[in-house]
Amino acid sequence: MKNGNEIRIVDATLRDGGLVNDFYFEDDLVRALYQTNQRTGVDYMEFGYKASKKMFDPAVNGKWKYCDDENIRAIVGENRTNLKIAVMADVGRCDYQEDFRPKAESPVDMIRVATYLDTIPGAVDMIEDAAKKGYEVSCNVMAISRSDEYDLRGALETIAKTPASVLYVVDSYGALYPDHAKRLVDTYLDVAAKYGKQVGMHAHNNLQLAFSNTMLAHSMGATWLDGTYDAMGRGAGNCAMELLLSYLEREGYEKYQMAPALPFLDEYMEGLKSKGVVWGYDTQYLLTGQKNQHPRAAIKFTKEGRRDHAAFRNEIEK
Amino acid sequence: MKNGNEIRIVDATLRDGGLVNDFYFEDDLVRALYQTNQRTGVDYMEFGYKASKKMFDPAVNGKWKYCDDENIRAIVGENRTNLKIAVMADVGRCDYQEDFRPKAESPVDMIRVATYLDTIPGAVDMIEDAAKKGYEVSCNVMAISRSDEYDLRGALETIAKTPASVLYVVDSYGALYPDHAKRLVDTYLDVAAKYGKQVGMHAHNNLQLAFSNTMLAHSMGATWLDGTYDAMGRGAGNCAMELLLSYLEREGYEKYQMAPALPFLDEYMEGLKSKGVVWGYDTQYLLTGQKNQHPRAAIKFTKEGRRDHAAFRNEIEK
Repeated sequence: MKNGNEIRIVDATLRDGGLVNDFYFEDDLVRALYQTNQRTGVDYMEFGYKASKKMFDPAVNGKWKYCDDENIRAIVGENRTNLKIAVMADVGRCDYQEDFRPKAESPVDMIRVATYLDTIPGAVDMIEDAAKKGYEVSCNVMAISRSDEYDLRGALETIAKTPASVLYVVDSYGALYPDHAKRLVDTYLDVAAKYGKQVGMHAHNNLQLAFSNTMLAHSMGATWLDGTYDAMGRGAGNCAMELLLSYLEREGYEKYQMAPALPFLDEYMEGLKSKGVVWGYDTQYLLTGQKNQHPRAAIKFTKEGRRDHAAFRNEIEK
Repeated sequence: MKNGNEIRIVDATLRDGGLVNDFYFEDDLVRALYQTNQRTGVDYMEFGYKASKKMFDPAVNGKWKYCDDENIRAIVGENRTNLKIAVMADVGRCDYQEDFRPKAESPVDMIRVATYLDTIPGAVDMIEDAAKKGYEVSCNVMAISRSDEYDLRGALETIAKTPASVLYVVDSYGALYPDHAKRLVDTYLDVAAKYGKQVGMHAHNNLQLAFSNTMLAHSMGATWLDGTYDAMGRGAGNCAMELLLSYLEREGYEKYQMAPALPFLDEYMEGLKSKGVVWGYDTQYLLTGQKNQHPRAAIKFTKEGRRDHAAFRNEIEK
């Protein structure tokens, strides 16, 4: 039986799910999630973004868009657990030099630097700053389903020379059919092997392939796998943590358990849905995923309660 | 570009979807589906079951549980189209000797014989009867995720010696993780190659793998692929036809088009859902799928409107 040491499971519920409800999660939910992750064996819990308060008005966003150390501390105390704490920071949308304190003063263990291919120099600066301050760092390259693979490889080589320890495949548009996912993971693994880095997978469910692509990446050698409870996340949502845990159990990882996820789903995720928070696969996401487009049009369609997919397809074909 | 001649797409919406609403579909919907399938390029439309009226009371089931030739004829006339007509018949639940007229008198092109591993002799009799009457025949072996693979291979050898032209992998419990699906498809392809038969895939979505497993089977050489619009089907539903069509377009099959599916989804599938007909992936199906169980407990849980998945898991663990 595998002991699970070789992989890392990251719960991105608050961070990717926060994109659905503007990061307004009750403390009760956050506390229950923190406890659930300890029970399921999840390795990292991503609390949200560390976004700039100058650029993003705190009056219209919940506190997990900013992840002040004090707010995390109010949930985790000194975090004397095996669950590590992660936050995400977008290149160009945070004030990392001032806002990120030295690791010794912060409950955060890992900073996940999210970048597009055309902001790699900014990502490198952020990675170096975070590493210097004592954090573990990953680099999550977004929207790569549209990237030129030569450009991507060059960017990965650049990132691989930084202190970032994990290079993440991020299928922002949920547009990766299996052959495409395989090609990208291959490229990442190739660069990662050269520089002694790990590869991660963060999938979206536009084509109902988030779980399948996550298993595929794992079977190829990716060792950092993201999930969210009830697949909560932007648009079509993510790889459901409960599916991922069921797979890991079956693969013989004794560390991970699906059953402790269920009370959290029943109480808290049902609670969000009953309040009208909407996410998850629907035909509009298939349409943007198939076209390898940002899901924003599909999210707007969803918010407006529209069900005229035929008209929607014509709109996004333009 | 592929011309699509080498594969066959089967729309099982009325048949598998009928298990959700007891086969009560309005003629309008059935007619619209018949037209939609012609537009999307689907090869076969399965109208329902040919069940015994002695065993299953016609007073409590819609007419597509019985698929009388007259009722099909009322929709398709002489069916002067490229879309072929299929019906399913379960071993031991039909009166095939009397109810199946010679093909020359029937609008039906193909009879899909559904069997369990322990009813293979009955399946052989039905296949031979249907072939003698002039029909194309497939044999759909249900619930194989629980079967012993030695027994399965023996059964496939027996079926392969009949006039059935297609041997179907049927993941009744939606329990096939990719490695298991691959092993089964391999076994089928191996026997099929020996006897000059084709292999089909009919998937269920308990683990959100119906589409993924269907693509997997296709990539391995399965040539008959089932889908249902909006994934309508028992429990967690099936491989969504619109996802399957999007994949086939991408693979270069010019025959298949996803766009014409959308008006049907918008008008008719939305209509069913707005009337309270419920199907599709949910956590209770993950739980039965992971345990490789029949979904009946999860279907009951769904019908009762329960959301206590933690308690449900304890119930099915017993």
